Amino acid sequence: MSAHASPEPSFRDSVDIMFNRAVALLDLPPGLAEKIRVCNATYTVRFGVRLRGEIKTFTGYRAVHSEHMEPVKGGIRYALGVNQDEVEALAALMTYKCALVDAPYGGSKGGLRIDPLAYEEHELEQITRRFAYELIKRDLIHPSQNVPAPDMGTGEREMAWIADQYQRMNTTDINARACVTGKPVNSGGIEGRTEATGRGVQYALQEFFRHPEDIAAAGLSGTLDSKAIIVQGLGNVGYHAAKFLSEEDGARITAVIERDGAVSNPVGLDIEALKTWIAETGGVKDFPGASYTPDGIFSIGSGLRYFDPGRTRRCDPP
Amino acid sequence: MSAHASPEPSFRDSVDIMFNRAVALLDLPPGLAEKIRVCNATYTVRFGVRLRGEIKTFTGYRAVHSEHMEPVKGGIRYALGVNQDEVEALAALMTYKCALVDAPYGGSKGGLRIDPLAYEEHELEQITRRFAYELIKRDLIHPSQNVPAPDMGTGEREMAWIADQYQRMNTTDINARACVTGKPVNSGGIEGRTEATGRGVQYALQEFFRHPEDIAAAGLSGTLDSKAIIVQGLGNVGYHAAKFLSEEDGARITAVIERDGAVSNPVGLDIEALKTWIAETGGVKDFPGASYTPDGIFSIGSGLRYFDPGRTRRCDPP
Amino acid sequence: MSAHASPEPSFRDSVDIMFNRAVALLDLPPGLAEKIRVCNATYTVRFGVRLRGEIKTFTGYRAVHSEHMEPVKGGIRYALGVNQDEVEALAALMTYKCALVDAPYGGSKGGLRIDPLAYEEHELEQITRRFAYELIKRDLIHPSQNVPAPDMGTGEREMAWIADQYQRMNTTDINARACVTGKPVNSGGIEGRTEATGRGVQYALQEFFRHPEDIAAAGLSGTLDSKAIIVQGLGNVGYHAAKFLSEEDGARITAVIERDGAVSNPVGLDIEALKTWIAETGGVKDFPGASYTPDGIFSIGSGLRYFDPGRTRRCDPP
Amino acid sequence: MSAHASPEPSFRDSVDIMFNRAVALLDLPPGLAEKIRVCNATYTVRFGVRLRGEIKTFTGYRAVHSEHMEPVKGGIRYALGVNQDEVEALAALMTYKCALVDAPYGGSKGGLRIDPLAYEEHELEQITRRFAYELIKRDLIHPSQNVPAPDMGTGEREMAWIADQYQRMNTTDINARACVTGKPVNSGGIEGRTEATGRGVQYALQEFFRHPEDIAAAGLSGTLDSKAIIVQGLGNVGYHAAKFLSEEDGARITAVIERDGAVSNPVGLDIEALKTWIAETGGVKDFPGASYTPDGIFSIGSGLRYFDPGRTRRCDPP
Amino acid sequence: MSAHASPEPSFRDSVDIMFNRAVALLDLPPGLAEKIRVCNATYTVRFGVRLRGEIKTFTGYRAVHSEHMEPVKGGIRYALGVNQDEVEALAALMTYKCALVDAPYGGSKGGLRIDPLAYEEHELEQITRRFAYELIKRDLIHPSQNVPAPDMGTGEREMAWIADQYQRMNTTDINARACVTGKPVNSGGIEGRTEATGRGVQYALQEFFRHPEDIAAAGLSGTLDSKAIIVQGLGNVGYHAAKFLSEEDGARITAVIERDGAVSNPVGLDIEALKTWIAETGGVKDFPGASYTPDGIFSIGSGLRYFDPGRTRRCDPP
Amino acid sequence: MSAHASPEPSFRDSVDIMFNRAVALLDLPPGLAEKIRVCNATYTVRFGVRLRGEIKTFTGYRAVHSEHMEPVKGGIRYALGVNQDEVEALAALMTYKCALVDAPYGGSKGGLRIDPLAYEEHELEQITRRFAYELIKRDLIHPSQNVPAPDMGTGEREMAWIADQYQRMNTTDINARACVTGKPVNSGGIEGRTEATGRGVQYALQEFFRHPEDIAAAGLSGTLDSKAIIVQGLGNVGYHAAKFLSEEDGARITAVIERDGAVSNPVGLDIEALKTWIAETGGVKDFPGASYTPDGIFSIGSGLRYFDPGRTRRCDPP
Repeated sequence: MSAHASPEPSFRDSVDIMFNRAVALLDLPPGLAEKIRVCNATYTVRFGVRLRGEIKTFTGYRAVHSEHMEPVKGGIRYALGVNQDEVEALAALMTYKCALVDAPYGGSKGGLRIDPLAYEEHELEQITRRFAYELIKRDLIHPSQNVPAPDMGTGEREMAWIADQYQRMNTTDINARACVTGKPVNSGGIEGRTEATGRGVQYALQEFFRHPEDIAAAGLSGTLDSKAIIVQGLGNVGYHAAKFLSEEDGARITAVIERDGAVSNPVGLDIEALKTWIAETGGVKDFPGASYTPDGIFSIGSGLRYFDPGRTRRCDPP
Repeated sequence: MSAHASPEPSFRDSVDIMFNRAVALLDLPPGLAEKIRVCNATYTVRFGVRLRGEIKTFTGYRAVHSEHMEPVKGGIRYALGVNQDEVEALAALMTYKCALVDAPYGGSKGGLRIDPLAYEEHELEQITRRFAYELIKRDLIHPSQNVPAPDMGTGEREMAWIADQYQRMNTTDINARACVTGKPVNSGGIEGRTEATGRGVQYALQEFFRHPEDIAAAGLSGTLDSKAIIVQGLGNVGYHAAKFLSEEDGARITAVIERDGAVSNPVGLDIEALKTWIAETGGVKDFPGASYTPDGIFSIGSGLRYFDPGRTRRCDPP
Repeated sequence: MSAHASPEPSFRDSVDIMFNRAVALLDLPPGLAEKIRVCNATYTVRFGVRLRGEIKTFTGYRAVHSEHMEPVKGGIRYALGVNQDEVEALAALMTYKCALVDAPYGGSKGGLRIDPLAYEEHELEQITRRFAYELIKRDLIHPSQNVPAPDMGTGEREMAWIADQYQRMNTTDINARACVTGKPVNSGGIEGRTEATGRGVQYALQEFFRHPEDIAAAGLSGTLDSKAIIVQGLGNVGYHAAKFLSEEDGARITAVIERDGAVSNPVGLDIEALKTWIAETGGVKDFPGASYTPDGIFSIGSGLRYFDPGRTRRCDPP
Repeated sequence: MSAHASPEPSFRDSVDIMFNRAVALLDLPPGLAEKIRVCNATYTVRFGVRLRGEIKTFTGYRAVHSEHMEPVKGGIRYALGVNQDEVEALAALMTYKCALVDAPYGGSKGGLRIDPLAYEEHELEQITRRFAYELIKRDLIHPSQNVPAPDMGTGEREMAWIADQYQRMNTTDINARACVTGKPVNSGGIEGRTEATGRGVQYALQEFFRHPEDIAAAGLSGTLDSKAIIVQGLGNVGYHAAKFLSEEDGARITAVIERDGAVSNPVGLDIEALKTWIAETGGVKDFPGASYTPDGIFSIGSGLRYFDPGRTRRCDPP
Repeated sequence: MSAHASPEPSFRDSVDIMFNRAVALLDLPPGLAEKIRVCNATYTVRFGVRLRGEIKTFTGYRAVHSEHMEPVKGGIRYALGVNQDEVEALAALMTYKCALVDAPYGGSKGGLRIDPLAYEEHELEQITRRFAYELIKRDLIHPSQNVPAPDMGTGEREMAWIADQYQRMNTTDINARACVTGKPVNSGGIEGRTEATGRGVQYALQEFFRHPEDIAAAGLSGTLDSKAIIVQGLGNVGYHAAKFLSEEDGARITAVIERDGAVSNPVGLDIEALKTWIAETGGVKDFPGASYTPDGIFSIGSGLRYFDPGRTRRCDPP
Repeated sequence: MSAHASPEPSFRDSVDIMFNRAVALLDLPPGLAEKIRVCNATYTVRFGVRLRGEIKTFTGYRAVHSEHMEPVKGGIRYALGVNQDEVEALAALMTYKCALVDAPYGGSKGGLRIDPLAYEEHELEQITRRFAYELIKRDLIHPSQNVPAPDMGTGEREMAWIADQYQRMNTTDINARACVTGKPVNSGGIEGRTEATGRGVQYALQEFFRHPEDIAAAGLSGTLDSKAIIVQGLGNVGYHAAKFLSEEDGARITAVIERDGAVSNPVGLDIEALKTWIAETGGVKDFPGASYTPDGIFSIGSGLRYFDPGRTRRCDPP
């Protein structure tokens, strides 16, 4: 489905390649693999919002890869690079992820082609409510059908706007609040949701280190304790993963890669202090007690790495 | 949105080019032209149907170009060449057509990528009901929202299946039958619908010949009476246009172009007889009292021409 | 479906016998005649109403013979003899009647096993609302699905109660009033509804006398003018038929059969005066200027006859 | 309500006789016993399905005995002997059963007059979906109103078809899956449902043997351990009851009566082996290590007996 | 219900006094007059809108005097003097007005306590949408229940906002546009609506002058031709009444009273010119060819008068 | 909003005064305090019921103070003194109460101006169902929106009627029973609900006596054990509070004030015996072993007091 063949497969192609590799091991009836592979439905919507004296047209998507279980789940991201191919590929990954861990959901994903930093909060609210209106009208946000969550460029705030928009359009739906997850706690969200994805990274690593053969196969040894870990992106996921791994598992976060470069310290970085530093200065540069490099960090050392593709620049290996 | 620039603009590009030419003459507020131009929403759906012992996956579309008036209107076509670009461009034309004649509808269009001749009737019913189910679920077929009609590859039969499918999913909707137009008369359709589009071609020509300056500007003269007309495609539209123009306006249908070639007769073809001939022999070849050529007909003579892009082969001018 | 074979077929059997005679003339696909013949659905409901200090249990029915066109139409009758067989047979007749005159409705019928004269008005309202509640809950009274009308033992009053009950249960349905026909004019009914069925009897006779061959085939001659007509039952239908036939077509109503016997006068009865007499005295006995007989009237003379099975005793021919 | 009085009361009569005996002990207000006794509503539906080139008409029922608690519960059975009387009597038993154990449900029951063995799976799916469509349309299958379960001739498979049909007609109902119980586990069913009814037989017997006075009153003594038990029908219920009673309570299953006769062994039959034998050979005949008789088994010996009326031939006592 | 007795009855009291006078002439069952008199329901709503950096709280009302016919009709006014008593009294007048002319509607009225001139258009839209949201949520604006219209301080623009708000909350309601009357023509409004109320004043006067006894009883004579008429308020109603009466009936508009005083001319004012003058100068002062007085006009002369209470200052008779 | 300023503030004024005192301590954005303070919505309904041969008109209210959390909660009271001001003030208290204890509900309250003792049970049922109908129609009784509870003059019985009325109007709502709390246990109510409010009084006092500084600040000392308590009104709340405090906490109920006066005994009253005495004799007078006074009891002694404003006469302190 990609426009042209290239030496490096597109994101969507690589998802399909992995899928094909997996189904080749199964004995499926004719036509079923193709049916599972394709994205069941994608809704492309273009809407106008009156902003700063003119009408601005936005393009958004909501893809449903498979509704074999309902509701389907998957985040809504706000980014300039959002496109139909990416949204459909991400929706497919949601189907596979849920199926692998037996979470009773189908896979979905949504996105809005926008730079969220280019707008003020009240403008983002207006844009988000309008986007949500279009999806709610088609039951593509709906407690029993399709339940989004935060993703790149969106968070609790956007989920609260969406939930409120749903309630305004479905004033008597007793399950209205269930139309999105990742809401603020005082709007019906649940405790622990914010740190959940980072916690998941920690749990996956803990599980990994319970299996000696896997550890060996990866060329590693020992336990998480004292392991050196490089974190690429100290956003919500990276921050919590780094925090829990260092505070609870004894790992050393020896480097953190961010938008403006990378900082490293072989004995481990103080994650709380670094988080505060980034919030105050806007970057990792000059973080006390750490080496700074504006370029790729991969030469610094080896270790387990978490990559947040939305927060870091392209870091080609040296 | 077209994949690559080319000397000959794509269908969609040419629709947008015409649109841009028109709005350039207006003094619209900033951003409004862009907002009008884009297709508001497109739903791409891929569904599986169990046919002949295997699961066959189909891809269909329903585009809503503008819902400034509701319901939106536009046919559903069945053809192998259906794609998102074409469906969106056709939906835009529906908006502009309705607006020009002040019909209180927005523009829409749908399509299913299928060769309808490759399936038996009961299979087409199964496929059509499944496609309709997907669109009805999203209110993309709905009496107050979006009302399809027959188009290339679909007709009364498909509309009856769709209307029945809607009724099964909305058993108490008093307006259920209004979810499609072009139904058979005994299923709530209206008299005259079958010949309506051909009748429209006749009316447009009659109107044209009421305006001397337009006639002159087109390098023509006189009236429809005895005018030589070439009809490209003797499907539903072409047949009725040819029939009414010859029977009621005295025009001569001097040539008819069909899939297997063209037949011509400078004094005029007997349309009823030709229609019967095509039904019985499958083509125009050997139609008594007419010259036959398997290639382009454009050298035969000049005249007004109606083109049915779905029924004729590519006829490059000589 | 009748419990035992008898020399005289039951009402339902005779409906089926006539149906079988008709379909034998058609060339239907296998199984279709059977499918058309059977009553598609019958809802039997038994409900309790607290009346005069005790709970009284009533049994009612709503049969849908064929919903090939919706809504289905058919009266609701209140009588002690109501049973499932009769209701289903009457529903079948509604299907056939509507189809014959191309009225776009399927056939239905309902009934409540009750002697309406045994209850006061406020009790009948309570019973009717409860019966209606049960049918409305199942969409067996519904503007787009199933639209009852008055029948034996019910009239405008009961229709008004039913319409009000529907509205209370569907407070925002814009078509609520359309859930029954035969409502009082000030509740959304239409002018002319009361006399419509009697008018229909007149129209049918007028039409008959426009066809000489039919007149001859029936062993009759001439026109309606001065024809002697016996009316069996001077209820709503019989009264209006007699009134219109005598006042507008010059026919003589030479006899009227009612619950307490029959009155006759070879030069014609004054229908208005007789109607008033029945209302005041409770029967036809002693109606001035007419012969009275408490038994069958069929020896009195011949003529066209209208039978109202609900208002007359069994009148075996002499 | 039975057509004729007979020395042996019909199934429905015997249900009513037991009911009358029970209410005679209560001091109910006038009319209430009658109101409780009658079946509140019965829906009879006749529908056509195009099968093997012809239209086949089927008759089905859904009876609601009492909706004093909602939803009402009760299985849907597929058998040639299904009729309105039986379905209503079974619905009454559901009301009484639920009330006795304080399960918060009213009583219902449904049935389709069909020999399920006469159709292939895809035909049964078509028939089941059509039957379900008719009941769903009337809210006679509905999560909050009326929730069927498997019964004779139906099982997990049919429940999955019904649930899917409900979801297709109510695409946004968050409780859609709750419209039937007894679904497959991977379609929202629960663990333990398959063996639940057999487990219930075991629990009832265990409870019985906890009450010495009841044991004595039944002319029995001791415990379940080593008790000889004859099982009539080794279907889902009989098999699990026999399995649990022998494996967990030490009872001896000394005889099993099936369609083709009965097998017995005074020291106890191996239930798992017998189950396998029936699956492989189609009957109990020639089961190793057991005596076989094609007729009634009741002379074999005494003991507690479980009767599955749907799986066994009429076994008159010798 | 008025807070204190006073020599001059309140508006609501005077409505009730007139009602009581009328029902005293009828022989109503006990309690019915009281039931008719009271306002069936009044919804008071207070909502906040974020405007100019702070939350501003507004109070609005929608009163339903009688829903004996549905929908109920009645305008929504925007004025600082709006209060529950006035809204309920105006709703009562709507019931009586509709009943008198046999318009099949019950009576309603709404109001928002606001000075519409104190807000910009985008603020008024925000406020109106929020007010409409509150009423729509309660079906107090609904095509089949309650259909507002423009009133003092509101017009086509507000109706368009309300209709759009309704549609956003009821995206699939085929009757959505029918939730208000008085919409702009290009939003589903009807031709002639703007001038309808002024036209009604003209029609009433025309009718009056067709009845000699009424003319005499009023101490008048002759026809509308050349009659001197004073118009109090040249808003939408006053302007159209004045225009039609002068242009079509030959009446002289000898004086017009407006906010800033009154202008008069015994031979008649040019209404179109005066309308333009007011639009350009903001008042009637200095209108060429007319006498001006800043105070009451009632000494100027006698004649028929139309009063628009919303547009004129209190004009005590001299 | 109070009709006139007075030295003693009205109930509503005092609620607002307390509110103002509290918000003065907060730093709220401009306008927010006002927005929180006002009652968001009040529905006043006047309906007629045919009782004892005439139409009786009743006035009821349902006020929603704040729907920042939904559903909103608050009782429905039946009393002659019910009025809009009181209902709105009580609704405000519900908002504040729920917020203080973090119960996720907004505040609401309803009332019907009626003396419930003046009607028989079947009349109260008729009135209650009609009142409920009006509120349900507006979603002012609704499982997800607004959930009433018993209050002065209403109890389990009225809640059962309301729940049944809701179910009749929303026959397929799976959450129908959740439209009111305080239902009888056999209609979906919960155990412990009846005594819950009295239990709450006990819990509050127990909590108070766990905080020495609060005890001292109130001029008290010690524990609940042997404390003398006067209970004003031995209705549902007072009875259970008195019962639990005396039975479980060792407190002495030294006096009980009821409609007909007060009884006292310094060593403590037997609450169970007194409850029975009131039920049998209609008052506290002549209760054995207690002093009786028809007037105020406040001179009897000091102690903690529970006041039930609905059950006691005005007891001015001496």
